Amino acid sequence: MQMTPQLTRPESLILVIFGGSGDLTKRKLIPSLYQLFKQGKLPDRFAVLGLGRTDYTDESYRPHLDESLRKYLAEGEYDASLSEQFLSSVHYLSMDPAVASDYPKLATRLSELDLLIRNPGNYIYYLSTPPSLYGVVPQHLMSVGLNRADGALRRIVIEKPFGYNLDSALELNKIYQAGFHEDQLYRIDHFLGKETVQDIMALRFANGIFEPLWNRNYIERVEITAVENMGIESRGGFYDQTGALRDMVQNHLAQLVALTAMEPPVQFNADLFRNEVVKVYQSFRPMSDEEIRRRVIRGQYTESEWKGEHHRAYREEDKIPHDSRTETFLAMKLYIDNWRWQGVPFYIRTGKMMPTKVTEIVVHFKPTPHKMFTTIDGGAVPNQLVIRIQPDEGISLKFAAKVPGSGFEVKKVAMNFTYDQLGGLASGDAYSRLLEDCMLGDSTLFTRSDAVEMSWRFFDPILRLWQEEDFPLYGYPAGTWGPKQSDLIIERDHSWTNPCKNLTNSELYCEL
Amino acid sequence: MQMTPQLTRPESLILVIFGGSGDLTKRKLIPSLYQLFKQGKLPDRFAVLGLGRTDYTDESYRPHLDESLRKYLAEGEYDASLSEQFLSSVHYLSMDPAVASDYPKLATRLSELDLLIRNPGNYIYYLSTPPSLYGVVPQHLMSVGLNRADGALRRIVIEKPFGYNLDSALELNKIYQAGFHEDQLYRIDHFLGKETVQDIMALRFANGIFEPLWNRNYIERVEITAVENMGIESRGGFYDQTGALRDMVQNHLAQLVALTAMEPPVQFNADLFRNEVVKVYQSFRPMSDEEIRRRVIRGQYTESEWKGEHHRAYREEDKIPHDSRTETFLAMKLYIDNWRWQGVPFYIRTGKMMPTKVTEIVVHFKPTPHKMFTTIDGGAVPNQLVIRIQPDEGISLKFAAKVPGSGFEVKKVAMNFTYDQLGGLASGDAYSRLLEDCMLGDSTLFTRSDAVEMSWRFFDPILRLWQEEDFPLYGYPAGTWGPKQSDLIIERDHSWTNPCKNLTNSELYCEL
Repeated sequence: MQMTPQLTRPESLILVIFGGSGDLTKRKLIPSLYQLFKQGKLPDRFAVLGLGRTDYTDESYRPHLDESLRKYLAEGEYDASLSEQFLSSVHYLSMDPAVASDYPKLATRLSELDLLIRNPGNYIYYLSTPPSLYGVVPQHLMSVGLNRADGALRRIVIEKPFGYNLDSALELNKIYQAGFHEDQLYRIDHFLGKETVQDIMALRFANGIFEPLWNRNYIERVEITAVENMGIESRGGFYDQTGALRDMVQNHLAQLVALTAMEPPVQFNADLFRNEVVKVYQSFRPMSDEEIRRRVIRGQYTESEWKGEHHRAYREEDKIPHDSRTETFLAMKLYIDNWRWQGVPFYIRTGKMMPTKVTEIVVHFKPTPHKMFTTIDGGAVPNQLVIRIQPDEGISLKFAAKVPGSGFEVKKVAMNFTYDQLGGLASGDAYSRLLEDCMLGDSTLFTRSDAVEMSWRFFDPILRLWQEEDFPLYGYPAGTWGPKQSDLIIERDHSWTNPCKNLTNSELYCEL
Repeated sequence: MQMTPQLTRPESLILVIFGGSGDLTKRKLIPSLYQLFKQGKLPDRFAVLGLGRTDYTDESYRPHLDESLRKYLAEGEYDASLSEQFLSSVHYLSMDPAVASDYPKLATRLSELDLLIRNPGNYIYYLSTPPSLYGVVPQHLMSVGLNRADGALRRIVIEKPFGYNLDSALELNKIYQAGFHEDQLYRIDHFLGKETVQDIMALRFANGIFEPLWNRNYIERVEITAVENMGIESRGGFYDQTGALRDMVQNHLAQLVALTAMEPPVQFNADLFRNEVVKVYQSFRPMSDEEIRRRVIRGQYTESEWKGEHHRAYREEDKIPHDSRTETFLAMKLYIDNWRWQGVPFYIRTGKMMPTKVTEIVVHFKPTPHKMFTTIDGGAVPNQLVIRIQPDEGISLKFAAKVPGSGFEVKKVAMNFTYDQLGGLASGDAYSRLLEDCMLGDSTLFTRSDAVEMSWRFFDPILRLWQEEDFPLYGYPAGTWGPKQSDLIIERDHSWTNPCKNLTNSELYCEL
């Protein structure tokens, strides 16, 4: 048995944020660091260095972040004196991360801060920049020797998307691997920072009762839905270059498939856990062009009225070309070729402008081998385990119970667990968890090079085929579950499980 | 595949209640019949004939029952005009059921009622008499030919206890089998009329996910608890002749073991279902005297203070001898020798003056084969399925979920189902269900001759051994979970699961 190594917090550390004046820093990183500070989880000697082209000084940067804390912390979390204390360790350096000649300035500033907090050169770089800089920054860091130092901690956190397709992902990996060891690399996927996502592993591997059922003998199909009830808002420029496959499927949904399908790891440490993730990606059954056409449906939202409001078509949104063929919806069916899952379809879908905002996994179990009871509507009562990632986080088991009264009629009911039982979810969000893990040197919840590659190897052929003009892009109105064609990929007798807003609702299908 | 025969309600029927002036008639039978009447579930031409030594007439009997309806029907169920309508079909005959020479009078009265409601001699006899008459009444019925009639429906319902030990049960069976066919016999066990008891079968056999786990590979042990927080009240005379084994274990608890352990029946009809019940009893592993001494603990409540009140010892209760050795508590461990259950202990216990009133089945699953997570208290998180028969009827699955926050600590949580989801339990109680089934000719939920015999064959040696003076009878104070010795029959590392009052409470053990 391999043991999980003992993780320790470094005594001192500087967190360097590339994109220090950006949206993610304001909304997520600084609030998460404030939470960690409040919980005493930051190193004793700690500094943040924000970088960016905006012309802040330490003195003008701090009030700017204080405002963000007031705005983005949850109700009651903000404390003025705590904020002042925390922000006193935050600094700013105005530089252009794209320009190599700015990096000696960075090295100098870091040395100054090292002296200030007695730090032996422990740095974590956080790349919260436009993806176009993901290949540039590491090379510039190498050019001034900031990538590695004997005896010092040097890690680099890279935001998604890691690569735009297979080729670019391979190219990025090559760049990073030239200057960093794999254990310095933290490709962040904030989905894995979510409590409910991590709880999939607890559910499966801390309980004796689910694992025996968790295979092709008892599971008929798995559905994973991650949808939003909004459009692209102000993200037009970014989104049109990205689309649902890159934004949601290749990373988040692939991770959820991996967690649902993986074999039990030997232990929960970074390598052993990620070995199992990679094995799932390696088992994704490659699709021929013809299979991609049958199993992958893309859609784009059209102009529509929904709940009495008018909604613009995707192509009419700001910064979107009028002939854009970027998908805002994707539904697909995939198979995992291994002993456990042979023949069990995984249906995944994501979309914008859907009837509700929800992410959930529905495990459909096979019906009883012998039907002994009658049901009210004459149909079978399927067993389902619903893992609700967000919102209304919880787990629900749908099963059949006897209808009170004479006879032996049964009806679907639900057993529900909600996180309220555990006093609710932790106050910190996914970023707190992942930032803390990175400081501790635990890369379990970050994506390894080979996982990125294997996932892209499976999804890349879809992107290639989409370049052909005749690959259909279906329109769908706001407030619907996407183009009708997505129903066709669900096999006969099945239909998508459209999640209800509230987990405690015992009804299966939503009233739209 | 054998099909369940189509059951039809007879067009006319007379229900003859032996013990018509007794407590059960007032409290249960008449209120249940009123419910069936209200729901239109009685035959169109229907009469009740109450029998007893009390000197009622039809006219004096009806107001007496009207009073019972007012008193024992649930809040809001009583309706004066409905009651009048229902009671107009109720009659009374003053006779001594123990005296053969009174039976021609019964035959005459039944003929008169036949004419009155145009009934071709369809009679159901309900024996709600002291058990001493269970062998007498059928013989007297035979003596005047009331037991059978060509083309007419003749059934007999016998209250528990059916026999006082193996010999008397065999003797009773012999008497009944001499004058009745097995399909005329309805040995009633009101436990089987309970919705939650019947739902055990729906849970197990209408769902695909439980049955694969329902065996020695995944189940570590099963606990069945049926306890009351009261003493014997005014039942002293009856109880001291009976005791916990006869009152609760040989019938009710044995049935619950059977439902939990049985193989799936081919179909839910009387014979096929009861074949499986009998197979469980046949599989009970017989115990040597030495094993009985080790595995069966009997107790009797002692004088004590509980919740600020003084409680008399059992031996000080009304009509109880001062040296009574009757058990008010029984805990035992038994094994079922078949492929499914080999090596899985079943722990059953029942008692009076316990901390709470509850009947529940706790299925303890084996822990995970490999421990990957830490728990808050360092122990394992066992998976348990709790089937709450009464009160707070429902089903709860206890499992491990991740504790929100850093690390991968897990903690026990619960998924709960309560019958509220199905609009609560049916308004009718167990007796309504069973009376209706008897009228329809469905004996599925009644005990068959061979089941009575097989159950007694297992429990009789315990009664015999108890006659030896040195078999211990332990005292226990009111408000405790019985004598400490009952803990010893639970194997090392286990302890009794003492149920909490409320199923929705996520705590496992009650605060007493």
